[in-house]
Amino acid sequence: MSKQELAVLGQDGAACCPALLTAPMGQDQAEELAKVFKALGDPVRLRLLSMIASQEDGEICVCDLTPAFDLSQPTISHHLKLLKQAGLIDSERRGTWVYYRPLPAMTDKLAAVLTRPQAADLHSPSEPAGAAS
Amino acid sequence: MSKQELAVLGQDGAACCPALLTAPMGQDQAEELAKVFKALGDPVRLRLLSMIASQEDGEICVCDLTPAFDLSQPTISHHLKLLKQAGLIDSERRGTWVYYRPLPAMTDKLAAVLTRPQAADLHSPSEPAGAAS
Repeated sequence: MSKQELAVLGQDGAACCPALLTAPMGQDQAEELAKVFKALGDPVRLRLLSMIASQEDGEICVCDLTPAFDLSQPTISHHLKLLKQAGLIDSERRGTWVYYRPLPAMTDKLAAVLTRPQAADLHSPSEPAGAAS
Repeated sequence: MSKQELAVLGQDGAACCPALLTAPMGQDQAEELAKVFKALGDPVRLRLLSMIASQEDGEICVCDLTPAFDLSQPTISHHLKLLKQAGLIDSERRGTWVYYRPLPAMTDKLAAVLTRPQAADLHSPSEPAGAAS
């Protein structure tokens, strides 16, 4: 697997992501990351993201999201807007409806940030570049 | 590597964690998970967690955390309390000071929840149990 592929998968922590578990995080990185975690810090948004991310055809109509909740359309739209602002989903209007699709790069980044280096080492037996010099 | 070790590392997603990216999440699981993400949705708490998790000796005195922030001791203590309530850290009082240590099981769980099954497959070349039947 190429280094590029690893980076795309968000597992190349050192290259792609601020360190959370291995070094004190700076204020700027913490503010950026906190916005995304805050977007996930609501059960309705987590359920919306899980519905969007688990679609086999890669997208879902807002008309199929709303009926799953006992909430108004504007409320659902507001939660979707926050997920979109956090970079977790994208949307496209086609005709009457808006369709939502996941942006896995952001969840990959969060997964990498939360993965302990020991766990990553177990998955990647090769030494990091420069470690043997 | 034993199955138990994998589960401890939080990579055995199906066994340990609610699905976020592969199936619509239920309300109860979403509420439980949202509390932890909400705890991470603040830059001060992210920085505190990163300072606690990156200690080589596994713990840090609150007296070494506070000076890193331009915040009062009660404010820092409040943020630490929220991280502790979320199951991300634990604390122990010894003498005058309270010492904080990370609880990696929770960040492992979040990492597993946020890891796409495709990415997990690339790390684990063996077929999941039952896939070949």
